[in-house]
Formats: sequence, C-alpha cells, structure tokens
Amino acid sequence: MRQRNKPWADDFLEENTHIVIPNPQEYKGKWKKFFGNDKAVHIEIGTGKGQFIVEMAKQFPEVNFIGIELAKSIIVTAAQKINESKLNNIVLINEDAANLKEIFAESELATIYLNFSDPWPKNRHEKRRLTYHTFLEKYQEVLQPSGEVILKTDNMGLFEYSLTSFSQFGMQLEEVNLDLHRIHDPTNRMTEYEEKFSSKGQPIYRCRVSFHNM
Amino acid sequence: MRQRNKPWADDFLEENTHIVIPNPQEYKGKWKKFFGNDKAVHIEIGTGKGQFIVEMAKQFPEVNFIGIELAKSIIVTAAQKINESKLNNIVLINEDAANLKEIFAESELATIYLNFSDPWPKNRHEKRRLTYHTFLEKYQEVLQPSGEVILKTDNMGLFEYSLTSFSQFGMQLEEVNLDLHRIHDPTNRMTEYEEKFSSKGQPIYRCRVSFHNM
Repeated sequence: MRQRNKPWADDFLEENTHIVIPNPQEYKGKWKKFFGNDKAVHIEIGTGKGQFIVEMAKQFPEVNFIGIELAKSIIVTAAQKINESKLNNIVLINEDAANLKEIFAESELATIYLNFSDPWPKNRHEKRRLTYHTFLEKYQEVLQPSGEVILKTDNMGLFEYSLTSFSQFGMQLEEVNLDLHRIHDPTNRMTEYEEKFSSKGQPIYRCRVSFHNM
Repeated sequence: MRQRNKPWADDFLEENTHIVIPNPQEYKGKWKKFFGNDKAVHIEIGTGKGQFIVEMAKQFPEVNFIGIELAKSIIVTAAQKINESKLNNIVLINEDAANLKEIFAESELATIYLNFSDPWPKNRHEKRRLTYHTFLEKYQEVLQPSGEVILKTDNMGLFEYSLTSFSQFGMQLEEVNLDLHRIHDPTNRMTEYEEKFSSKGQPIYRCRVSFHNM
C-alpha cells in the first residue's frame, strides 16, 4: 500500500497504546489473558486501513481480532477506525509478519487472514510472498491444529501461486472460490481494495486452507 | 456432449477395430506390448470428437495415446480423424471411465487428461463428476507413482470442486492456471470446446496434479 509521510504518526501511536500494542512480544502465549477472556484469536496480516478487521470485529463479538500492519503511516488510519468503533475485541500490532513466532505461541491462534497481500510478481521476490513456504511454516506453528488460513486476492498470479504453494507444503484446501462476488455472501466483509476492484467487475479469489492431516 | 443417432456407427466400429479396440480388458497390463514399444501411455477420459488427442499424438510421437469415450455416436468422429491422420501411436476405447481398473493394470499409465468433463453441477450428481474421490482412487491405481492428472475446463464450479477434491484426497497441485490463454502457450492443444469458449473470451482453467508423497 502506498505510504504517505505522516509526521504525527509517532505521537498518535504513543497516545494510543491501548489500540496499537507496543512490545507485543510480551504477550506471547498470553493473548487470551490480555483480552481477559477465553475467546478464539484471529489475526489479519497486512491490515492496511483496517476496514476488513473492524467490520469483522463488529460482526463476530465472540472472537478477538488482532491486525498486523508494518506501515506506521497506514496503521494509524486503522487505529482511528477502532477508536471510533468503541470495540473492545480488537487491537493492532505494528510489526513485520516475519516475526510472527516471536509474538504468538504454538497453537495460540484459530484463524489467519491474508487479504490482498502484495503479489510480488517477480520470481526473484518469491520469498517475500506471504504464502511462500517459510511463512507457511510460521502459520503452522502459531495456528491450533484445527486452525485455518483464509486468503482473498484479486491477483490471479498470487492466487495460482498460493494454491500450489499451500498444496506442496502439505496443506489441505477446504474451499476454493474463483469469483467471490458471483453470489452475494452477506457474511463476507470487504477490504478497501476488495470494494474498489469488485466494483469494477474484477473477480475476487478466496480460499480456505488448513494443516489437517499434517 | 449432445449425441445424434448414427445408425451406421455400429458398422463403422466393426470395420475399424484397429482404431476403436474391442474388449480392451484383454490388454490390461499389456498396453506397451499392444503398441509394440516401450513408450509412455497417456489416456484422455471423455475424448469426444478427438481433436485434442489426435493433435497431441501428432505433437508427441514418443508417447502412446488412448482416448476413452462412452458415446458411440461421438467416438466414430474421433476414429475418422485418426483414420485420416495415419498416426500409429493412438487408439480409442468405447468404454465407461468407471471401468478403468478393468482396462489398465497398476502403474500402467503416465498421464490422465480430463478435458471439459461434464460438470454435473447439482450436488446430488457429485458422484458422477470425474474428480469425485471414487474416480481419484482409480486414477491413483492405474497411474505410475510419478504420473499426473491434467484437467482443463471452462466451468468455474467444476474447477473449484476439483481443486478441493484433489487436495482432500491427498493429491498435490503441481500447477494451477486460471486463464490458460492469457499467455500464448504453443504446446497447448485445444479441444473443440476449448476453441469455442476461448474464442468468446471465456477463461480456460487448467491444473496439473500428482499423487506424490501419498
């Protein structure tokens, strides 16, 4: 996502540590305690401006949500949305997804959402794709055995790559959808990108995958 | 495929037993002997009018091809194409794919092509889809361990279903292509359906799957 310089972002984050959690490594293995309840924890990697995860948190009060976003200038927009929503089942983390295992303990999560991740189309950037096997290995560790990865994208190349990468890692496809908006699904929450692309008639791809039988 | 009544089909088949092999069960385990060489054997299930497999046989003289088609009134068209081509690395079988294990021995085949198979969109017809698990079990038996299933279709529902079915059976996706004609692939041989649908701009889906690691 394009980043604009926001000089006030640092100040904002310092004033909103109840929303964008500093030093999230301290809560590794203790996220249910952090939320003060025993609800399942779902994370979104690459939360962007936060529309998806904030709408999910409204729709599923029985779930705790954590949005992860590396770009400071973007996470502040998501944080503002959460501020306004008054939701108490959602927080954010300003971290790199590569550090997932430092933030979450084994089997601590129920679901990982990957929404409109950077496709990194060049072969030499394959390692940066969030569905490259080094990332899948992290997801496998932090997800509970019944946990799932749910990926949405408008990028055909990333979707083709991801299906193959999941399968070759040994993951199981639970559902594949090649045109999510072909049928109206009232439970689907859209990201900002998804709204933009699907309104242009572009198909949105989604799949749900698990580490069952691994 | 729609069938027209062809009263001369029976006579034609009787006169062309060198192309449409009667009693193919007799050659179970002996297909390389039948062809008189040690080349790999590839089959297409649902050969239809035969354009794909005849073109493949021209392109790959180092492979023996067998087309399987249940409809008598259609297989005669494929047989006529083979007659005209003078190819000696291709024959046809007028049988139901459900009988695959009666026709081929364990590990006798290198590749199975499923081209534009009937999607059977109703849930209650799931068992008839050529990617239902009862068929996959047959493919696993007759394919050599390094063998592959290559599926092409224009039907989104069948493709979504098949990817999931392959994966849940434990098969591995080697390649997924969500718009085969996006990039010109000079090695791709088109079926009659494929020519028709892709000329209308409809995407053609293809995947290549294996039983590796099973």
